[in-house]
Amino acid sequence: MTTKTRMESDSMGNVAVPDDRLWGAQTQRSLENFRIGGQRMPALLIHAYGLLKQAAAQANMKLGKLDKKLGKAIVDAAGEVAAGKLDDHFPLVVWQTGSGTQTNMNANEVIANRANEMLGGKRGDKKPIHPNDQVNYGQSSNDSFPTAMHIAAVRQVQDAVLPALDHLAGALEAKSKEFAKIIKIGRTHLQDATPVTLGQEFGGYAQQVRNGIDRVKACLPRVYQVAQGGTAVGTGLNAAKGFDKAFVEELKKLTGLPFTSAKNKFEALAAHDALVELSGAYNVLACSLMKIANDMRLLGSGPRSGIGEIHLPENEPGSSIMPGKVNPTQAEALTMVACQVMGNNVAITVAGSNGHLELNVFKPVIIHNLLQSGQLIADACRSFADNCVVGITANKARIQQQLEQSLMLVTALNPHIGYDNAAKVAKKAHAEGTSLREAVVALKLLTGEQFDKILRPQDMLGPR
Amino acid sequence: MTTKTRMESDSMGNVAVPDDRLWGAQTQRSLENFRIGGQRMPALLIHAYGLLKQAAAQANMKLGKLDKKLGKAIVDAAGEVAAGKLDDHFPLVVWQTGSGTQTNMNANEVIANRANEMLGGKRGDKKPIHPNDQVNYGQSSNDSFPTAMHIAAVRQVQDAVLPALDHLAGALEAKSKEFAKIIKIGRTHLQDATPVTLGQEFGGYAQQVRNGIDRVKACLPRVYQVAQGGTAVGTGLNAAKGFDKAFVEELKKLTGLPFTSAKNKFEALAAHDALVELSGAYNVLACSLMKIANDMRLLGSGPRSGIGEIHLPENEPGSSIMPGKVNPTQAEALTMVACQVMGNNVAITVAGSNGHLELNVFKPVIIHNLLQSGQLIADACRSFADNCVVGITANKARIQQQLEQSLMLVTALNPHIGYDNAAKVAKKAHAEGTSLREAVVALKLLTGEQFDKILRPQDMLGPR
Amino acid sequence: MTTKTRMESDSMGNVAVPDDRLWGAQTQRSLENFRIGGQRMPALLIHAYGLLKQAAAQANMKLGKLDKKLGKAIVDAAGEVAAGKLDDHFPLVVWQTGSGTQTNMNANEVIANRANEMLGGKRGDKKPIHPNDQVNYGQSSNDSFPTAMHIAAVRQVQDAVLPALDHLAGALEAKSKEFAKIIKIGRTHLQDATPVTLGQEFGGYAQQVRNGIDRVKACLPRVYQVAQGGTAVGTGLNAAKGFDKAFVEELKKLTGLPFTSAKNKFEALAAHDALVELSGAYNVLACSLMKIANDMRLLGSGPRSGIGEIHLPENEPGSSIMPGKVNPTQAEALTMVACQVMGNNVAITVAGSNGHLELNVFKPVIIHNLLQSGQLIADACRSFADNCVVGITANKARIQQQLEQSLMLVTALNPHIGYDNAAKVAKKAHAEGTSLREAVVALKLLTGEQFDKILRPQDMLGPR
Amino acid sequence: MTTKTRMESDSMGNVAVPDDRLWGAQTQRSLENFRIGGQRMPALLIHAYGLLKQAAAQANMKLGKLDKKLGKAIVDAAGEVAAGKLDDHFPLVVWQTGSGTQTNMNANEVIANRANEMLGGKRGDKKPIHPNDQVNYGQSSNDSFPTAMHIAAVRQVQDAVLPALDHLAGALEAKSKEFAKIIKIGRTHLQDATPVTLGQEFGGYAQQVRNGIDRVKACLPRVYQVAQGGTAVGTGLNAAKGFDKAFVEELKKLTGLPFTSAKNKFEALAAHDALVELSGAYNVLACSLMKIANDMRLLGSGPRSGIGEIHLPENEPGSSIMPGKVNPTQAEALTMVACQVMGNNVAITVAGSNGHLELNVFKPVIIHNLLQSGQLIADACRSFADNCVVGITANKARIQQQLEQSLMLVTALNPHIGYDNAAKVAKKAHAEGTSLREAVVALKLLTGEQFDKILRPQDMLGPR
Repeated sequence: MTTKTRMESDSMGNVAVPDDRLWGAQTQRSLENFRIGGQRMPALLIHAYGLLKQAAAQANMKLGKLDKKLGKAIVDAAGEVAAGKLDDHFPLVVWQTGSGTQTNMNANEVIANRANEMLGGKRGDKKPIHPNDQVNYGQSSNDSFPTAMHIAAVRQVQDAVLPALDHLAGALEAKSKEFAKIIKIGRTHLQDATPVTLGQEFGGYAQQVRNGIDRVKACLPRVYQVAQGGTAVGTGLNAAKGFDKAFVEELKKLTGLPFTSAKNKFEALAAHDALVELSGAYNVLACSLMKIANDMRLLGSGPRSGIGEIHLPENEPGSSIMPGKVNPTQAEALTMVACQVMGNNVAITVAGSNGHLELNVFKPVIIHNLLQSGQLIADACRSFADNCVVGITANKARIQQQLEQSLMLVTALNPHIGYDNAAKVAKKAHAEGTSLREAVVALKLLTGEQFDKILRPQDMLGPR
Repeated sequence: MTTKTRMESDSMGNVAVPDDRLWGAQTQRSLENFRIGGQRMPALLIHAYGLLKQAAAQANMKLGKLDKKLGKAIVDAAGEVAAGKLDDHFPLVVWQTGSGTQTNMNANEVIANRANEMLGGKRGDKKPIHPNDQVNYGQSSNDSFPTAMHIAAVRQVQDAVLPALDHLAGALEAKSKEFAKIIKIGRTHLQDATPVTLGQEFGGYAQQVRNGIDRVKACLPRVYQVAQGGTAVGTGLNAAKGFDKAFVEELKKLTGLPFTSAKNKFEALAAHDALVELSGAYNVLACSLMKIANDMRLLGSGPRSGIGEIHLPENEPGSSIMPGKVNPTQAEALTMVACQVMGNNVAITVAGSNGHLELNVFKPVIIHNLLQSGQLIADACRSFADNCVVGITANKARIQQQLEQSLMLVTALNPHIGYDNAAKVAKKAHAEGTSLREAVVALKLLTGEQFDKILRPQDMLGPR
Repeated sequence: MTTKTRMESDSMGNVAVPDDRLWGAQTQRSLENFRIGGQRMPALLIHAYGLLKQAAAQANMKLGKLDKKLGKAIVDAAGEVAAGKLDDHFPLVVWQTGSGTQTNMNANEVIANRANEMLGGKRGDKKPIHPNDQVNYGQSSNDSFPTAMHIAAVRQVQDAVLPALDHLAGALEAKSKEFAKIIKIGRTHLQDATPVTLGQEFGGYAQQVRNGIDRVKACLPRVYQVAQGGTAVGTGLNAAKGFDKAFVEELKKLTGLPFTSAKNKFEALAAHDALVELSGAYNVLACSLMKIANDMRLLGSGPRSGIGEIHLPENEPGSSIMPGKVNPTQAEALTMVACQVMGNNVAITVAGSNGHLELNVFKPVIIHNLLQSGQLIADACRSFADNCVVGITANKARIQQQLEQSLMLVTALNPHIGYDNAAKVAKKAHAEGTSLREAVVALKLLTGEQFDKILRPQDMLGPR
Repeated sequence: MTTKTRMESDSMGNVAVPDDRLWGAQTQRSLENFRIGGQRMPALLIHAYGLLKQAAAQANMKLGKLDKKLGKAIVDAAGEVAAGKLDDHFPLVVWQTGSGTQTNMNANEVIANRANEMLGGKRGDKKPIHPNDQVNYGQSSNDSFPTAMHIAAVRQVQDAVLPALDHLAGALEAKSKEFAKIIKIGRTHLQDATPVTLGQEFGGYAQQVRNGIDRVKACLPRVYQVAQGGTAVGTGLNAAKGFDKAFVEELKKLTGLPFTSAKNKFEALAAHDALVELSGAYNVLACSLMKIANDMRLLGSGPRSGIGEIHLPENEPGSSIMPGKVNPTQAEALTMVACQVMGNNVAITVAGSNGHLELNVFKPVIIHNLLQSGQLIADACRSFADNCVVGITANKARIQQQLEQSLMLVTALNPHIGYDNAAKVAKKAHAEGTSLREAVVALKLLTGEQFDKILRPQDMLGPR
């Protein structure tokens, strides 16, 4: 444990802080007052705060509100935060003040101390750069924290979520092509139905993921809007005129992403509807991924006493007691991720609904859950694609056997012998355990040759 | 109770049906097999089914698959379903087969019986029009039910949800203008903060609702896609070639709405992600409305021992025991609706995630919840706008008094006496129960005249 | 439509009311102010209000606060409410004031009018019995509505939920016995595993339901506590001393159920934790029922290309396009009910968490969802038991065939040839599509006779 | 990074493992195959696994199935796991196989390697103790993982959750006593109502927490039941006869807690209803805590323009921009925790509902969420009690002022001048901004002296 401390101060007085840490008095107070859980503020949010403080300093320099030399040092120090070099100096947990004030102050304190060091000063002196007066100039926790939330959320979407979804969709599409000619029995209500190709099934999964990409993108116009410039209550008090626009210009340069300034800053502080919306898109993805993974485990069930139409890759021994057992473990991980994302969506929803007047004070729990959902979806889609989908092979013999014995091929007889007669054929074959051909011939509805000509699975894969 | 019955039949045999009802054997079986709850299939879905059967018959006639005379009768009978004239003939509950097959058959049976009557036939004869062979021609429950779900959902969005949201947004915007000059204390963390105008607050609410409109619209490209033409498993078996496109053309004519044929019919039967997505947009609206309604009851709390900045309309006596009490009842109804919509979203999410292979069999519970959410939002927004928002008046005396006594106006002194001195002033005034002016003068930081010049709430409403 | 009206009045003035209805001015106001959705206050709640008003009148007579003649008339009129005879006179929807005040007034008004009629008076005169002064004597909406909620919830548990669960558990237990000797392949991860009996599987389902009964019962000590006597804010102002205890005594007589007076009336008005708890027990049941129903459709999947170990009863034609198809429709209805109950639990949770100070004003949405969940569980369990479980038969041939071909029987060889050799045997048989016997002999690990002696499924059903 | 590795093996072959780690081949495979999120299996679960492996070894020794020397070493090594000394050797994440097999193998591998070292062997040799053959003797992941889940859940309840709840309830009760004589205005619908004492309010909060304790305890009879002895599918294959009972005896000794062997092992593997139930109890607590914390921020709102009846402790500066601002940060942390627990409950519910046949394979996500909820509740209750509740003081001047000006005291006049006259008095005073006394005198309904005698808040705190 750190034993050496230095004294840091804030408007309530002095606090001892571990000397090898860059944070100051307010961070230390929070650390001591909130010994709850162990979930730290997400690193992506901290990095976003680094970008934010860079952009704010640039904008304030442009607007003549911040000395260039000091501003330059702030930009450099904030750059280290953005690059993840100072993660160890952000110790606070999610369960703190609901505005994230203490994490904003953590950023202000770390950047001030680091920048002062760069300028030859020392930790704790707040000179020449003061956490509030320079690093936080023209800002409030109330506009900067939601801005950091949006930056982190958008960057995760662009850097992790969308690429991973595209990767998974691509893997499914490749399988759809590979399996395009494999005709198999379809199933509705988990009951035998008319045929489809295995490729058509995988094409449906790919479409779900592609639609999911569209869904996430459809939210972005509102997530690109940032609150910065609203300061304490949305009015922009104490920010320089034009700061909101100047800030966004700098942010766009730093990130290459089309951020905009929120049309209505009051809305942007008091509600986080845009993030509830994005979580809703993740929630739909959770449904899609649950469905896809469930189908994989159904299609791969067996090996002998299940559906058994596909082989899933064997990545690890499946059982400590049953030798030779292999389980659909990637599907299982993916479905557990889906559960979590659904639960996180409820946490975010309740938090998002509980704002009061000028400020929603459930910000940390919202961004914690949102970024967790984003990461879980991205990671699990990649893992599932790479460790499961690409290795799937078709069990053609089994597929053929089940296709042949299917009673639902009878549907193709409707136009020839009528629905009622067709039903009789199916019921007779089912009751007696025979083939449809045998039943139709026994009922003298068709000859064997006629039957063979009509009932061709390969002709049942589309409208005619 | 009806005692007179006639015999209707299906492939399992005969069933007695009340003679004054148009439904047939399969509907009757479902009625007897599913005595669960009392929630009927939503009328909007039944009406959508009417439109669907009209469009399908038109398309099949165009494609030469349906006799014109029969087709015309089907279109007329289905038109009565669409117009809501036959609602009493759709008795089935939500809790039936998960494909909604029995409701599709209910529609087929009612339309066949009604069309046969129009053509001079009689109920139960299935001549000249047969429920399956003509009314259901080229269709399956598996593609028609989801198509009806999308039609119903979209029409509700266009006819009810969006207009009601626009109505509420308009009412809030009118109040925002009316209250534009009323300066009041802002509150963050429910604690006194720097000033805003009452108009700015209402403008934030309006923005939330306007964004909600955008959110719902952002979902529509995927809800406009309909599954029709996929038939039993997505392949389109037994539908005429080109039926899907022809159907959509007819549907567009009937509804005036830009429906499209789903790119991937397999996805459209096996998953209902598009409706989970729409429910997600409603869920965000629930958050927004909860926030807005909560603020109304906070701002209107009192009349004497709360915030009391606005007067809500007095619509009914508030208490059976406390004379003269008035409660924020419209806000309460709206927040209860918000709870329901959040709950419904979870029901829809779980249902949407549980599809298996070629078919999701949670269709009825999905559409039941989605349409309920849509109606509740639409109705409650209208009720809230008309019975609450438009009648809100500002309690200017109270607002002025609270503004004047606010300690957070001290923020404007920062540039003049520094953050630390400003903090001392605020703390002194708080501790001694005095005004900021008294405290600043006592501390000899400013003269009273200087104070009056600097600290002007009307200058604190934006960046300077 | 009713055209004839009479004038009724309340403290805000006169209101025209349909003359064939017993309600008064406040009910009518609510009807006009809340045109939201169509969900009426649940009948069970109205009936509970009837019991409540009976018990309150009895208690007030005992305490000398209510004239006997008037009290008797109130008891009689309230008895008609309790018996469901006046349901048509309770038109209000769930989406009203969050205290349910208008439904309390609806009860007061209907009972007063009805009782006055009994005493020779006429509707609207409020003489000799006044809705507030006599029917509501010593009561507030704030204590009576939650009391009615608890009465309705408990009665539904006792009259519907527990008996239905017991009925379903019994049906499952009967099948467990019937199938006790049918040895089948077990499945974990949906993959073939070591054997179980079909009876053991059904025994597990029965245990889930039996545990569910225990869970519901475990909540009751807190649901039996009623708020009556707390009046407006929990203090009991304007109620007679001892009224809470006297009320409970009467209620116990009327219902035969062990109600108690809430220890802390403040808690009982301001929170509905006891009902959130009961909903939580229903939520667990939803999980159990989802699991059981999913297993039924898995075990019954096929008939040829699924697991196919059981036959589900064929209750209705399964498809409008595929002749002879039968679907697990009861299982589907049950799983849809499970989704709804899970969603309702979230609605109740959000509502339950949002109380403020002396009163939770989400009462109607809580009881609406809770009673819906209770009814859906009760009805669906009965329907599932009667229309599905009792008719299930085992497909013994299929079960035997799958058992014989199972590779996981190899587990029994562990003690004889070791886990590693056993794994080799299983892998060889799997790769080459042979039986375990063939593989073990080919690998010269055992003779065929040794194998036959060791590997006996009937010895694998318990510890040895 | 570790560079030195050793070779470990399992039934699929060799895997290189960091040489300073005790885990083996299967753990390493999982580490590489599941690069998802960063959430490790909870330490409490790992410690429970240590206890489990101790108890199993003891039982197996008693039953003569395990060599005493080897067994002793296993018990010692497992003891280190239970004590948390080997946490660094359990690297696996939650998002793995849904049975937790790899975490069971992680425990088996670590204990085997550690025990072999104790016996003079070396890592990776699996001699004399083999992970599967000795450490896992008579066990499967399928029974041991749920057993570890129950052990971890129960211990957390006993060691953390219940004590923290008791601590919070005690703090609230102390305040209830301290504030017993402070009469204040009550509020229903956030509107002024009849008086209560501040102590009565805090008593209601304490009751909610006390009831929460009862709720958690009511679940325990089912959580104390453990699955151990069911092995792979619930039959107990390969476990010694009597192992389940012997295991539980050892577990009781080790923990001092009244564990029992699950009545039905099939249910105990295939479903986790008991943990869904416990999560449901946490969900009710989340509602209670949300309510209590919301009230604290309402009562403490202001300091000047809110309700302002209590002072919350000032733990840190509240704003980086508004000097002197203090926020209800502990209440905010607590309400965020409540959101998370509600979300976790949904994740657990969905996971709990998705079991298939003999095994629920959502075990890790269930226990991850459940233990997180338990810890968050325990930590946050303690933090809230210690950093907020104990430091709350009443603002008596404000309370008195609001009480005096309250219009709802008029309720006490009902018995003297009637409800209608009382309503007139309240409305007149409200409209004219006067006191009730002035209004009643002006209306000539009472003299000032009569008024003073009747209207005494201290007489309005209970039934009379």
